[in-house]
Amino acid sequence: MRYELYYWPTIQGRGEFVRLALEDAGADYVDVARDSKRGMAAMTRFMESRSIARPPFAPPFLKAGKLIIAQTANILLYLGPRLDLVPKNEASRLWAHQLQLTIADWVSEVHDTHHPIGGGLYYEEQKAEAKRRTADFTAERLPKFFDYFEQILKHNPSESLLGKKVSYVDLSMFQMIAGLRYAFPRAMARFEPKYRRLVALHDCVFARPRLATYLASDRRIPFNQEGIFRHYAELDEQG
Amino acid sequence: MRYELYYWPTIQGRGEFVRLALEDAGADYVDVARDSKRGMAAMTRFMESRSIARPPFAPPFLKAGKLIIAQTANILLYLGPRLDLVPKNEASRLWAHQLQLTIADWVSEVHDTHHPIGGGLYYEEQKAEAKRRTADFTAERLPKFFDYFEQILKHNPSESLLGKKVSYVDLSMFQMIAGLRYAFPRAMARFEPKYRRLVALHDCVFARPRLATYLASDRRIPFNQEGIFRHYAELDEQG
Repeated sequence: MRYELYYWPTIQGRGEFVRLALEDAGADYVDVARDSKRGMAAMTRFMESRSIARPPFAPPFLKAGKLIIAQTANILLYLGPRLDLVPKNEASRLWAHQLQLTIADWVSEVHDTHHPIGGGLYYEEQKAEAKRRTADFTAERLPKFFDYFEQILKHNPSESLLGKKVSYVDLSMFQMIAGLRYAFPRAMARFEPKYRRLVALHDCVFARPRLATYLASDRRIPFNQEGIFRHYAELDEQG
Repeated sequence: MRYELYYWPTIQGRGEFVRLALEDAGADYVDVARDSKRGMAAMTRFMESRSIARPPFAPPFLKAGKLIIAQTANILLYLGPRLDLVPKNEASRLWAHQLQLTIADWVSEVHDTHHPIGGGLYYEEQKAEAKRRTADFTAERLPKFFDYFEQILKHNPSESLLGKKVSYVDLSMFQMIAGLRYAFPRAMARFEPKYRRLVALHDCVFARPRLATYLASDRRIPFNQEGIFRHYAELDEQG
């Protein structure tokens, strides 16, 4: 089956977690809104349509045959077993999904470092609040998330959160580390020596052949100031 | 099987979405941390243990036999078919879960109206920011969420988001309406006439016999100023 991914064409954003899974698995898919101007119009039609009985609230969403599936973690819940990126038994699938949902919460918190007041307002309109929120995020939240995932890796013999093969959760964790390095290079330089297992996981994922090809291609949109992970020097390790 | 729910004993919070499903289904469960002081200690032990291979990041979590499942929407994904609160086919389960994840995002946004800077800080330390964020939330986000869910109900002949029987998503939507009424009574008085299908869904869930019994019992913790939904007069419909 050829999957159709619908997501904003100019950012990595939440769609990137899905792209990484599809790319790593060598899946047959089309990134609809990047494909052509018609693709972007098709995405907008989906979102504005009042005739779809099961509409997405927001991108990303995936068309798989007749199914339209939205919410990043839900898309990965669906794709995981089909792309052989999660064990097939229910307990492992629930555990992988639980970790993915914790990553989703983390992603929202990263977004809110630069948009603590409202997603529809410019960063410049909430810069003072962004500074306060980011200070709290790097002091309290980042170490909490890192501690949690590093601790899970301690239970595993391999560089994988699920303990055996690489799963879609590992691909998402790679993306978190890469994104946080882009957004908060100074904070990350301080954190990384304490979380060596997570850094090893990042490196292990980065070296996967199909993923390395993807990351070096122009299909990988560079990090930029429109996505979830944004670099504002004034937010990174304020004094 | 007797389920064990672990959640903070003095608030509805995210745990309430699970409680409503268990109560509506008449499931055999124990609300561990409410049960005794030993229960609260047991919950803390789970969260601080470094020996659990698959630990929760935060409450709520559910013990079901040997499984420990965290993340509210993930718990409901697991319980839904077992409590007969979702259709059994995969497409409907994914759709229900997608809606539940959208509700989870909404819940986080409600939380951040009173805590836009950091969950570890007091409300009083972020009151100015809370006013700005809440103004944006009621102007931009509330109508967006309401429009979305009301539109879904328009496709359905019954007062149910999944279109036939009541599902766990309907129970969660009931909780959203009830919570928003507590937190933002003035804003809700203005919104409700526009979203009659959602109000009808709320009333329909409220009238379910087992749920009515639960809601009238002392097992239902009253809304209070420690939970997700909090009433601060200064945040509700500022001029």
